[in-house]
Amino acid sequence: MSNSTAILLITCKDHKGLVARVSGFIHEFGGNILDSDHHTDRETGDFLMRTVFDLAGFQIPQEEIANAFGPIAKIFNMNFQIYFSDRKPRIGILVSQYDHCLVDVLQRHRRGELAIEIPVIVSNHQTTEWWANLFHIPFRHFPVTPQTKEQQEREVLAVFREHQVELVVMARYMQIVSEEFLQEIGCPVVNIHHSFLPAFVGAKPYHQAYDRGVKIIGATAHYATRDLDEGPIIEQDVVRVGHRDTVQDLIRKGRDLEVLVLARAIRLHVEHRVLVYGRKTVVFD
Amino acid sequence: MSNSTAILLITCKDHKGLVARVSGFIHEFGGNILDSDHHTDRETGDFLMRTVFDLAGFQIPQEEIANAFGPIAKIFNMNFQIYFSDRKPRIGILVSQYDHCLVDVLQRHRRGELAIEIPVIVSNHQTTEWWANLFHIPFRHFPVTPQTKEQQEREVLAVFREHQVELVVMARYMQIVSEEFLQEIGCPVVNIHHSFLPAFVGAKPYHQAYDRGVKIIGATAHYATRDLDEGPIIEQDVVRVGHRDTVQDLIRKGRDLEVLVLARAIRLHVEHRVLVYGRKTVVFD
Amino acid sequence: MSNSTAILLITCKDHKGLVARVSGFIHEFGGNILDSDHHTDRETGDFLMRTVFDLAGFQIPQEEIANAFGPIAKIFNMNFQIYFSDRKPRIGILVSQYDHCLVDVLQRHRRGELAIEIPVIVSNHQTTEWWANLFHIPFRHFPVTPQTKEQQEREVLAVFREHQVELVVMARYMQIVSEEFLQEIGCPVVNIHHSFLPAFVGAKPYHQAYDRGVKIIGATAHYATRDLDEGPIIEQDVVRVGHRDTVQDLIRKGRDLEVLVLARAIRLHVEHRVLVYGRKTVVFD
Amino acid sequence: MSNSTAILLITCKDHKGLVARVSGFIHEFGGNILDSDHHTDRETGDFLMRTVFDLAGFQIPQEEIANAFGPIAKIFNMNFQIYFSDRKPRIGILVSQYDHCLVDVLQRHRRGELAIEIPVIVSNHQTTEWWANLFHIPFRHFPVTPQTKEQQEREVLAVFREHQVELVVMARYMQIVSEEFLQEIGCPVVNIHHSFLPAFVGAKPYHQAYDRGVKIIGATAHYATRDLDEGPIIEQDVVRVGHRDTVQDLIRKGRDLEVLVLARAIRLHVEHRVLVYGRKTVVFD
Repeated sequence: MSNSTAILLITCKDHKGLVARVSGFIHEFGGNILDSDHHTDRETGDFLMRTVFDLAGFQIPQEEIANAFGPIAKIFNMNFQIYFSDRKPRIGILVSQYDHCLVDVLQRHRRGELAIEIPVIVSNHQTTEWWANLFHIPFRHFPVTPQTKEQQEREVLAVFREHQVELVVMARYMQIVSEEFLQEIGCPVVNIHHSFLPAFVGAKPYHQAYDRGVKIIGATAHYATRDLDEGPIIEQDVVRVGHRDTVQDLIRKGRDLEVLVLARAIRLHVEHRVLVYGRKTVVFD
Repeated sequence: MSNSTAILLITCKDHKGLVARVSGFIHEFGGNILDSDHHTDRETGDFLMRTVFDLAGFQIPQEEIANAFGPIAKIFNMNFQIYFSDRKPRIGILVSQYDHCLVDVLQRHRRGELAIEIPVIVSNHQTTEWWANLFHIPFRHFPVTPQTKEQQEREVLAVFREHQVELVVMARYMQIVSEEFLQEIGCPVVNIHHSFLPAFVGAKPYHQAYDRGVKIIGATAHYATRDLDEGPIIEQDVVRVGHRDTVQDLIRKGRDLEVLVLARAIRLHVEHRVLVYGRKTVVFD
Repeated sequence: MSNSTAILLITCKDHKGLVARVSGFIHEFGGNILDSDHHTDRETGDFLMRTVFDLAGFQIPQEEIANAFGPIAKIFNMNFQIYFSDRKPRIGILVSQYDHCLVDVLQRHRRGELAIEIPVIVSNHQTTEWWANLFHIPFRHFPVTPQTKEQQEREVLAVFREHQVELVVMARYMQIVSEEFLQEIGCPVVNIHHSFLPAFVGAKPYHQAYDRGVKIIGATAHYATRDLDEGPIIEQDVVRVGHRDTVQDLIRKGRDLEVLVLARAIRLHVEHRVLVYGRKTVVFD
Repeated sequence: MSNSTAILLITCKDHKGLVARVSGFIHEFGGNILDSDHHTDRETGDFLMRTVFDLAGFQIPQEEIANAFGPIAKIFNMNFQIYFSDRKPRIGILVSQYDHCLVDVLQRHRRGELAIEIPVIVSNHQTTEWWANLFHIPFRHFPVTPQTKEQQEREVLAVFREHQVELVVMARYMQIVSEEFLQEIGCPVVNIHHSFLPAFVGAKPYHQAYDRGVKIIGATAHYATRDLDEGPIIEQDVVRVGHRDTVQDLIRKGRDLEVLVLARAIRLHVEHRVLVYGRKTVVFD
């Protein structure tokens, strides 16, 4: 018995009766659906669902729900996960020298806005160690050069594993992580890119935006994949700029965007509102 | 048998098993849920639901679905309506002299963007008759003075009834409709107010906004109720203004907002995405 | 003597005393500056200025102002133009089958929102002829095939010249105009591209945006140059989209953006608020 | 001689030759205008101007510029101020328990984004003392009750005077400051109100917005005047909300708005871009 809630995420091909079977299962065992949303991609036939139900009065213990749901999942060939609201995801942070995204996440965490744990902060610089100490979070410093990159990534991987990290947040980590790192890490990696993707991929997007003379700049939070800046987009936002804005102004205005967009993406992810399929996301907000 | 879809709207107090029973009913008779959304107001305990299901293969004829669903509705003391996508709502338009909202609705209708019928346009002026004729829509002119207002409203009511109007859109109708009119009309009335409600209720909101020196102006589409500008809000949007903008500039910028906000509100309403409870709306978009 | 205003646009390299000399000239001959704005690009050293002054009481006749200002222009090696508010720019419209941008421009023109003349509408289709007739604007139909393109462009050029067009607006003209056309036309050409440039250049940007899974789509008004979709940007705007939006929804939402962004760009251009330098614009709004 | 810039702010009634005289003065003594903007309110005849000029090569020492400009000011009956970019305004902060605006300002200050000094933080609570200590800023705690309010305000006033504060920022100070305080303080006071004024004046605006069912909420930075929430508006911004958002969600989303809107208002004020006239502002950005 518990007063927390369960979040059931389902991905499969569309079939008649999916919603009825899932909601019937929850009702049968005394659960109350608090929130439910689903989406069918008519082109691909993909069905994606997120259902939140109250565990108070639910007759199956938390640890057995997945087993109990198994037969239904089998019928429809579902991929599914069950999360519980009393369990905070463990987030590892990767950061370089710019601290605005890091400090923002720490502040939100501190005031209870994000239901997460931050077991470790990893950086290739020491500039943010001060903030880690301030918030009593273990800080690990792994400098990197082109020669040591492979070795450095192995060390970073080991630290994240040691801390049983379930999500890596690249809070302006100015290194490109390798395909091997992404394969080995075994959990999603969220990156904040300082442009309105797919405009201005790659390095120095604010300089690119300035040179092109755009009237709006943006920021994009996406899952990191082996194709740089090509991963599924979680959240984007934009701000107006004009001819008076220098590159420095774009960087300044962009910082505020990066902070907000990354914070929203983390919130969406840790509330299990983001489902990936193909190179896209469904965001149930 | 039909290849259209059914839209089932439900309002009741929250209970365990609501989603399971509704989706079970649809599944039992061979329907496929295409889209479903619901909301529970934790404070009031109100439960609101919108479910869209495919009628292809559904074993109950359209005209008997309401009866068949009756027993379930009774158990949970539901208010419910069923709409069918092959049936276009009949919209009556009320307009005065400004034609921008009217012309925009007519254009969207013409290019097939809104699945509606417009059986009649009613105005207290003749300036928009040209547009009505152009689009081959019956136009009725009922001038109004403080002395003739009661009589005029009776005539307008009679026209809308004669044309079996299911929604009245006040597309910048510069008259305040009476409480009696709203009681008698027997269908929802959508109004576009040219401010970001509840700021600047009443007359000349752009002048009020100019005098107050706000940096952003807005427009609000809401259901008309007897309390002027107090009805449930369907949609709002805003645009930036600055010290260089005169009242005329505010009016010009505001026109673009009014057009967009009213168009979105009509779309949301005719797709049965708006449920009213208390003085609020739930918008399932 | 006149109660209209003059708009003086200046481009040159930055020098001390530029503002003093220009404002001194206007003051010396009895003009009153109503509005003035300038910008210096610190990187390139470019100076751009727009000054509006009242012609009431100005001691130089309109037709001699340019001559009188010549000596000052020479000192600073200025490029300059003088426009008068009582003179409406002549705009030629190029359009294909989609009529939303065209109808919007015609409506704004009709209600006096744009101080322009529209002497001719040119199309490679006949679908918009109805609208041209309605608004009593000459319509010319020049169909185009890959084989006849060169000939068709010569005919279009001849028509625009015949009507002494000072700006060409491509209001969703689905043809790529040739470099020769742009050289020959002898006036600016404004295009509306249905994406947030530089994202999604080229064909079918809404389909590209849908495939990429972006959370925001945009529209861009820019001057047409020989490099497709690479011309100086005048105005951009964006709207949120989500996983429920199909390509058709993106197209629908995008239409509203295209209309607004193009209308704003035309207004900015005809009020002589846009100065081009390099591949960028300065917009004095 | 200096490599800083001067910012000249002028307010007077509109006259011919104002721009020429001001720019002529600067040019005459060897200054180079870097940026200049002005505005004439056609209704009231008010003229407001902001001119930035380079002091390198300017022949009048900083401390004598005001005197030298005096005769021109006298001719046109100008109010004027001269500020210098090498002189950072001294800002006193008033805060209660919510720390998000305070921490944001401190962070921007720390990374050099705001050219200000913060000599003191004053609070009626001790919760933010930790942050003041962290950033090595003197912290003064003056608790307040209805009985001690008069005395408390005198103490706060004394502290701000002692630190020669030139701007007071109420960074979510949950007390209403008295008319006497505003008269005595002798410098502008900026407040952040957590609604889109003039909607939801007074207490608990997020609760008011929730009860009204608005689809957009806002935040407003304004100068504090004796009429509560009626002072001249400097900056506003908004964010979308929906039926799923609880009051707590509105508060959370609103926090991000408050932070951004207050930060922008402070930046605009300390760069001397805001001129007040009547109950409005001109913002030269």
